[in-house]
Amino acid sequence: MTTSEIGLLGLGTMGAALALNIADHGFDIAVYNRTTAVTRDFKRDAGDLSDRITPTESLQDFVAAIAKPRAIILMVPAGDPVDQQIAALRPLLDDDDLIIDAGNANFHDTNRRAREAGDKPFLGIGVSGGEEGARFGPSIMGGGKKASWDRVAHILTAIAADHEGTPCATWMGEEGAGHFVKAVHNGIEYADMQMIAEVYGILRDGMGLDNAAIAAVFDRWNAGPLKSYLIEISARVAEAKDTDTGRPLLDIITDAAGQKGTGRWTAIEAQHLGAPVPAIEAAVAARNLSAARNLRKIGEEMYGAAPQPLDGALSEDQLEQALIAGKIICYAQGFQMISAASTQFGWKLPLPDIARVWREGCIIRSVMLDDMATALTQTPDENLMFAAKFADDLKANHTALRQVVAQAALHGLAVPALSSGLAYFDTMRTARGTANMLQGQRDYFGRHGFERLDRDGKDYHGPWAD
Amino acid sequence: MTTSEIGLLGLGTMGAALALNIADHGFDIAVYNRTTAVTRDFKRDAGDLSDRITPTESLQDFVAAIAKPRAIILMVPAGDPVDQQIAALRPLLDDDDLIIDAGNANFHDTNRRAREAGDKPFLGIGVSGGEEGARFGPSIMGGGKKASWDRVAHILTAIAADHEGTPCATWMGEEGAGHFVKAVHNGIEYADMQMIAEVYGILRDGMGLDNAAIAAVFDRWNAGPLKSYLIEISARVAEAKDTDTGRPLLDIITDAAGQKGTGRWTAIEAQHLGAPVPAIEAAVAARNLSAARNLRKIGEEMYGAAPQPLDGALSEDQLEQALIAGKIICYAQGFQMISAASTQFGWKLPLPDIARVWREGCIIRSVMLDDMATALTQTPDENLMFAAKFADDLKANHTALRQVVAQAALHGLAVPALSSGLAYFDTMRTARGTANMLQGQRDYFGRHGFERLDRDGKDYHGPWAD
Repeated sequence: MTTSEIGLLGLGTMGAALALNIADHGFDIAVYNRTTAVTRDFKRDAGDLSDRITPTESLQDFVAAIAKPRAIILMVPAGDPVDQQIAALRPLLDDDDLIIDAGNANFHDTNRRAREAGDKPFLGIGVSGGEEGARFGPSIMGGGKKASWDRVAHILTAIAADHEGTPCATWMGEEGAGHFVKAVHNGIEYADMQMIAEVYGILRDGMGLDNAAIAAVFDRWNAGPLKSYLIEISARVAEAKDTDTGRPLLDIITDAAGQKGTGRWTAIEAQHLGAPVPAIEAAVAARNLSAARNLRKIGEEMYGAAPQPLDGALSEDQLEQALIAGKIICYAQGFQMISAASTQFGWKLPLPDIARVWREGCIIRSVMLDDMATALTQTPDENLMFAAKFADDLKANHTALRQVVAQAALHGLAVPALSSGLAYFDTMRTARGTANMLQGQRDYFGRHGFERLDRDGKDYHGPWAD
Repeated sequence: MTTSEIGLLGLGTMGAALALNIADHGFDIAVYNRTTAVTRDFKRDAGDLSDRITPTESLQDFVAAIAKPRAIILMVPAGDPVDQQIAALRPLLDDDDLIIDAGNANFHDTNRRAREAGDKPFLGIGVSGGEEGARFGPSIMGGGKKASWDRVAHILTAIAADHEGTPCATWMGEEGAGHFVKAVHNGIEYADMQMIAEVYGILRDGMGLDNAAIAAVFDRWNAGPLKSYLIEISARVAEAKDTDTGRPLLDIITDAAGQKGTGRWTAIEAQHLGAPVPAIEAAVAARNLSAARNLRKIGEEMYGAAPQPLDGALSEDQLEQALIAGKIICYAQGFQMISAASTQFGWKLPLPDIARVWREGCIIRSVMLDDMATALTQTPDENLMFAAKFADDLKANHTALRQVVAQAALHGLAVPALSSGLAYFDTMRTARGTANMLQGQRDYFGRHGFERLDRDGKDYHGPWAD
């Protein structure tokens, strides 16, 4: 009987890609899928890699095909299916067999499963990069016991994306730490995409560029500080033609964005942590509102079309600079959220490693993340906006962000993420804010008390108090 | 033995005020507090109302003092204390005795308690208006079985605030509907206050007005469309002097806002409902960031002070108009959230009644809510921005909102709530948005598929698909 080094359960798009990636790196792998035909097709279509793949048609055979102590990757839909598969597998396994949930789990579920597993090894790993990443090198964020991670680290680092010799696979911390970091990644992805979409709207509606010209702008930016997978594919999307009609693809895609809820999770967790991520919130809201197409049509009929030509009020360079500033601010929010979680959950999340693991393989990979890794190594606890490199970048670019937000406001171009980013930046560089008014109001109507600048202590009251 | 018409447990600030209010309206009331001295002091200090108040010193005596079938108001801190008091009371009560949680419960807890109560009567009521409201007329939002509400409606409507003969107390729907509506109220309160604070910042830092001049501006606005409790007290806060030093109070209050988490709840629930409330999110974020005073000082040292003088770029009238527009947009978000919850939970929440019940007694009371009640009666399902009256107001005022957001952006004045409001407005009046770019990106990296404008069906793919 073959004994494979690892097993993988769930041959959907992501599972199949990950299994091929593992085989491709020289590891024998046993695979199982509930629908047997899928397993057979997978083996049949695996080409040169077929020899390393042991297809199995029952859970018993699957488990028997894996060398002890076993390591089994689950790649099934997040939620109940994961619990069901764990419940089905555990009776067939030895106590020291390792189950690895590589799906898109909510990190609270991973926390719970880690507790439920007790002494039995369990990892929750976030795998980013979509099908392409899973097949040829994802970014992998691990959570669970370090000893369990170490057992499979040689496989996970082998299959992960590579950044100049450093694998993009890292153990982040206990329990759901890996899935938490993946959730923040997805939230940042939402915000990054939304800011690009806002700039696309300005290029299209404010400057009147056609799709080919927009593609050229993104291509140009992809040679500079904004160089990133998302800018690169924005160019590819903008230049694409519909194969049926030959029309520019962007002109026929409906402007109603789907979401799988991952951005929403991040926004909710940020609220629980008290760590504001307004750029992510703006992105989630933008997707929700995009779905309300009928309401938006009513709005346009009632008020007239919002976007007005800019008549040269903004340059492409200003847009690029605004996007640089917006992106730094957005990532600063994301890392502050991670920092808050690290404190809250006692995880000691390695912020520089997180930036490193995102440099390749995942959707938000970019050259900027390399600088962020360096900056976070130097000042791990600081807001990224105050790290020297990014402070320089923000000083050079925030004026353009101001111009873009101002002109967008005047011309009806909706820039929720960029404008929230600017507000965050200005809030964080204003030593004397305006919350004294809020505290005055709260004391007036609710006797909540306030602190004073000129004295120690709390619970001072205004002259309206009895 | 006296038999009081109703009982109240928990003589904290809010409970004591509510008990006096009930007595003041001619109802005999039994009261109980865990600390007996509080109960005795309460009776002693009740003056003319003392005759109507039966103080009790044990739960048994408290229950025995109330006429059957009993009605008991709990006014204890939200969370475990409520469950503990219910558990302590129930064994002493008859099955048809009614428990009313009038505290600040999370509506999910109220849903659970309603289910746990089974056939035993239980209400969760949101009481708004702070101590003053509780004493002299709060806004009351009821949830639970309608029949239970009807048993105490004569008391609750008698003690509620009055708007031109209509009591501000209404049954909203089953289970936690009342506490849900109260939560949205509190979220709107956050956003309303934040927008006022942002305008205060512009008056102070952008226009250089002193506190007395700012108070005069708020007083003037309080005679117009913005007439509301919050604008009124903003004037009182701005003109107030510290009794010790004689200095303007606003100048000594620390700019770090507290929160009890109610705005955060609303933001989280809005995420769960998929109903964006960016103005509330901006307000919650602003309070969080206000607490980061040290970080904001670092920011100011690094980048220089953000707020710059406007040099006449904005007028006070423009600020007033911007605040009118921002307020309408903020309330539109709140009512859309209520509408979404109504669908989601099957509550049939009465939107016009909600606007009516907020007209007096609560913190967000304003003349604008009267118009909102009318508008929501005419078009209950529509976004408030598209109701005729408010469409007219927005048409008249959105240009000023644009100017304010633009000038604030250019001059470093942080306006997170106002700018998010403008982005929401412009998004909702743009028939052709920019989410087609998001969908193109999502299909490119994740094969998520998209809809087409020119064809029915879903799951179309770009030319990058295999």
